[in-house]
Amino acid sequence: MYNLLKKLFPICRSITGNGVRETFNILKDHLPLDIKEYPTGMKCFDWEIPDEWNISDAYITDEQGVKVVDFSKNNLHVLGYSEPVNNKTFSLNQLKVNIYTLPDQPELIPYLTSYYKRRWGFCMSHNELCSLKDGNYTVNIDSTLEPGFLTLGEAFLPGKIDKEILISCYLCHPSMANDSISGVVLTTDLYKKLSQIDRYYSYRFLFLPETIGSIAYLSQNQKRVLKKTYGGFVITCVGDPGIFTYQRSIHKSHVIDRIAENVLKNSGKEYKIRNFRFAGSDESQYSSPGFNLPVGSLMRTAYPHFTQYHTSADNLDLVTEDALNESLEMYLKVIKGIEGNKVFKNNNPYCAPKLDKRGLYPSLGSQRNISEEIYRMNWLLNYGNGENSLIDIAEEVDTSILNLIETSEKLEKEGLLTLDGSK
Amino acid sequence: MYNLLKKLFPICRSITGNGVRETFNILKDHLPLDIKEYPTGMKCFDWEIPDEWNISDAYITDEQGVKVVDFSKNNLHVLGYSEPVNNKTFSLNQLKVNIYTLPDQPELIPYLTSYYKRRWGFCMSHNELCSLKDGNYTVNIDSTLEPGFLTLGEAFLPGKIDKEILISCYLCHPSMANDSISGVVLTTDLYKKLSQIDRYYSYRFLFLPETIGSIAYLSQNQKRVLKKTYGGFVITCVGDPGIFTYQRSIHKSHVIDRIAENVLKNSGKEYKIRNFRFAGSDESQYSSPGFNLPVGSLMRTAYPHFTQYHTSADNLDLVTEDALNESLEMYLKVIKGIEGNKVFKNNNPYCAPKLDKRGLYPSLGSQRNISEEIYRMNWLLNYGNGENSLIDIAEEVDTSILNLIETSEKLEKEGLLTLDGSK
Amino acid sequence: MYNLLKKLFPICRSITGNGVRETFNILKDHLPLDIKEYPTGMKCFDWEIPDEWNISDAYITDEQGVKVVDFSKNNLHVLGYSEPVNNKTFSLNQLKVNIYTLPDQPELIPYLTSYYKRRWGFCMSHNELCSLKDGNYTVNIDSTLEPGFLTLGEAFLPGKIDKEILISCYLCHPSMANDSISGVVLTTDLYKKLSQIDRYYSYRFLFLPETIGSIAYLSQNQKRVLKKTYGGFVITCVGDPGIFTYQRSIHKSHVIDRIAENVLKNSGKEYKIRNFRFAGSDESQYSSPGFNLPVGSLMRTAYPHFTQYHTSADNLDLVTEDALNESLEMYLKVIKGIEGNKVFKNNNPYCAPKLDKRGLYPSLGSQRNISEEIYRMNWLLNYGNGENSLIDIAEEVDTSILNLIETSEKLEKEGLLTLDGSK
Repeated sequence: MYNLLKKLFPICRSITGNGVRETFNILKDHLPLDIKEYPTGMKCFDWEIPDEWNISDAYITDEQGVKVVDFSKNNLHVLGYSEPVNNKTFSLNQLKVNIYTLPDQPELIPYLTSYYKRRWGFCMSHNELCSLKDGNYTVNIDSTLEPGFLTLGEAFLPGKIDKEILISCYLCHPSMANDSISGVVLTTDLYKKLSQIDRYYSYRFLFLPETIGSIAYLSQNQKRVLKKTYGGFVITCVGDPGIFTYQRSIHKSHVIDRIAENVLKNSGKEYKIRNFRFAGSDESQYSSPGFNLPVGSLMRTAYPHFTQYHTSADNLDLVTEDALNESLEMYLKVIKGIEGNKVFKNNNPYCAPKLDKRGLYPSLGSQRNISEEIYRMNWLLNYGNGENSLIDIAEEVDTSILNLIETSEKLEKEGLLTLDGSK
Repeated sequence: MYNLLKKLFPICRSITGNGVRETFNILKDHLPLDIKEYPTGMKCFDWEIPDEWNISDAYITDEQGVKVVDFSKNNLHVLGYSEPVNNKTFSLNQLKVNIYTLPDQPELIPYLTSYYKRRWGFCMSHNELCSLKDGNYTVNIDSTLEPGFLTLGEAFLPGKIDKEILISCYLCHPSMANDSISGVVLTTDLYKKLSQIDRYYSYRFLFLPETIGSIAYLSQNQKRVLKKTYGGFVITCVGDPGIFTYQRSIHKSHVIDRIAENVLKNSGKEYKIRNFRFAGSDESQYSSPGFNLPVGSLMRTAYPHFTQYHTSADNLDLVTEDALNESLEMYLKVIKGIEGNKVFKNNNPYCAPKLDKRGLYPSLGSQRNISEEIYRMNWLLNYGNGENSLIDIAEEVDTSILNLIETSEKLEKEGLLTLDGSK
Repeated sequence: MYNLLKKLFPICRSITGNGVRETFNILKDHLPLDIKEYPTGMKCFDWEIPDEWNISDAYITDEQGVKVVDFSKNNLHVLGYSEPVNNKTFSLNQLKVNIYTLPDQPELIPYLTSYYKRRWGFCMSHNELCSLKDGNYTVNIDSTLEPGFLTLGEAFLPGKIDKEILISCYLCHPSMANDSISGVVLTTDLYKKLSQIDRYYSYRFLFLPETIGSIAYLSQNQKRVLKKTYGGFVITCVGDPGIFTYQRSIHKSHVIDRIAENVLKNSGKEYKIRNFRFAGSDESQYSSPGFNLPVGSLMRTAYPHFTQYHTSADNLDLVTEDALNESLEMYLKVIKGIEGNKVFKNNNPYCAPKLDKRGLYPSLGSQRNISEEIYRMNWLLNYGNGENSLIDIAEEVDTSILNLIETSEKLEKEGLLTLDGSK
């Protein structure tokens, strides 16, 4: 994952344009992607796809012709969706109107965009701005804002049933390593891992420009999404070394939330829970009242609570290979919990079944030491009434759903439990 | 309010009699009151209106003819509803049988009544009692207990709908400034303020003698009260400078309780919550199982927890103008919350509406600082499904209903929310 | 109770055999027992009654013919259900395979059984084992494992209704004073006490060998148990001087659980609550999904949390007469709560009834001191709507159900409340 991330990091992406296409060309080597291009101007609910933006160069030169800001050094230097500027000269004070900095983080370049209002601008560190001397500066932005397309990618893994788990990531950010790209590379690897296992649910993977991408996609797939989607995750901010954060779906305690929290609680790792954020990423669209889908997000340090967020410091130094791997592993555990969250029925509901004759209980009677495994069997048998799913039982007795899944498989094999559905 | 309170304070009121009538004559200068007189002997559910009590004078003289207790100095000196006594002489020990004091508050005169059992008595400070010398004392109580009437007053402000908010206060206490009269003057001002605004609910104001007054009123208005009343408040103990106390209705978490608590929580002021008190004021009648009305009470220090309660120290020194004004303001905020607790429907349920094109969202994209106002819009839009009222949303996200009301009006004006009812 | 316990203690009981019969012969002097004998080999759900086990003697002799372990000194020395051994000689190392000790409690003999797998064995203190010298040892176990019967006893006290409270204790343990026998003697006394009162519920008392006994009983009485049983208790571990523990039924908050916890909470005594134990006694059978009966257990120190549990230290020294008596008293209080947990209807639902005219309220009006009794009357009248049972009210206002029962009887006598059913 880390290598792919390094490859994707330098590309200048936005919500439209060739940076996104270039990114998909690289991703296509890793998973089969169905690329869609929606025309600019297309209506999507209350929105409209804006013109396609492309940029080849941008810089500010001082009176000596020295480039004091240069897009080719860092693609954050240009305000996203800046309109073209052809060799215009400004005094320093005039120029400052179009310069964005972070006075409280004076060494970092901010990441800013203006998708829906035409303007141009440059982002730079506050220190650099302060070092500019009075005088005239000449601005060049070699960009285009023209009719074109919004590009997105989709992959699908069918399961035993056609209920879908939605895995969504966004790739509209330029060089942001943790916010955005870490999610893209983890989603890519998750696809690979899930393609290799027996799946109960079907899995739909979306690689979109944030907000307008999910809105456009939903507008074109409204019925299917509403009918088929069981729940999902928006994957982002999974590469920094901070502790895990689970952001609940808008339902707060949907089965997917409960399973994610159960897995974290029993992982032995530190973690935080936060409620649905009403100023979030694409989950805001998936969970709008008309769709109302349960979409959570398992992150490391949750945005915007890492200081590098939306600055030039969200770079390759922030993301570690270990963190990415651990995040992938945790997502796989959560999905294992979702896949295994079945409803069982005890085949011997009247009194306890005789476990020792099946080799599941010691033949020497002493109640002094009862193993966890015996408790798990009894929990499953007692609550196995065809109504409780494994997460219901795990919560009732405060244990790990992943352990219950294992024990349930043993009891099913012995004919003591019968699968009675899923929830 | 404080001036009116000073005017009402000296009058000797009881559950019947001319003190109540005199009080209503003063109140009539401030609001249009419909005065009702119910005849004594009238049956009201399990009760009966007792004889009307009037008193012109009462005193105890010692052997020298000096008045050692004198009703004309403090109307608390006579046990309420004392029967007449004509120049009867007693030894000090005999007299003591009919003397009531507070040994643990030796400087204060207690407030006591005996509405339903004929007796006579005097109340005095324990110090005064101790200072009485052995010898004979002559008692005179110039009172009458005769057929007559129970007097109560009613005012009404119609609203858009005929569901009523009941505002009830009691005026049977003689010179009690905080317990009773503070509620009477606040209710009077509340009438004035509410008469000047657009009202969604109708408001019914009752000025009653405590307990028998509300029982008599309910017995004569049973059907209408049951059919029309949405909820209400008993107003008393609103003049002392203590922190606020909200006493919940018997329902504990009726909408009016939830709104009152939300307003207090977001007021920046210290406050307490207490559950319905099963030995309270007229809310005991309104909330009896047959009526079961949600009636709360927003007080300052809740009775009987101020040491002056039901003593001569509950006087003009206890009540401050600031406390009265602040209490009125808080009641107005609670009522604003009740009036504004509407149910809205998001007109763009599929994906977020585009807020920036309506000037409600910054055109420059950075998620680093999200304003409270943006959260409020998103909460209202996401939970605006025609099912949640604003208090439901306010509690769900732990914010102020009054702020939500303001934002909802803005979104309604922009056509983003449509009023869908009230709850 | 303590005398009976001393009498029962020395008998060598098991899940079948003459020890159980001898125990019933003694119990029959104390209560009328219906003794049932189920044939070995009888199928009971997933189980089968094993052969009847009887034992007359067992010992190990050393080369000098000295008995180094002797069943006649402590019946725990023989592994329960040991098969016969006739004069077989083993080296010390060979012998050790069949010797069971507690290395972490080296002075105590463990209590062990092997009901369903044929083996033989001796239990001894670890110190005794260590003191055995190398050499040959001769083993004799004079036991029989033959077709026969499983013996259990039943008693019944009819009530006003045929809904039954199940009181179950187990008597298969040999010399275990607290675990098992304390429950047997308390159940016996409980029968006597309950036989002397007016009963609303019917009471069924079961004296069973643990697990197989309740399984066999349930298999033969399935329909009646399912139809008639309201709830019940497994009585055991009630003789040690530790604080009370209430083990909840599998329903966690069934009425019987709520009443037991209310009684404990208001008893002034320290206590613990623990959830249903999924490795427990006969409640595991009563609460299996097919029966799903609410069966709790009020114990002192809950098994297996006293160090003497299932060892030779669970003897007459552990159990005190005071603890037994206090446990009985607490069970009687819980049953009083269950019997009295009625639903009442307020006969004067509109406004408060006039309590003073019935002598239930002081005629002198002062709200300064309200007695608990007045609160209780108001709670009962306000919540007496034909829907709340007394435990509902007790929990709502956090008071003692036993006190509410007393007050409700007073109000019923005055015609203010009418019994409206039970819950």
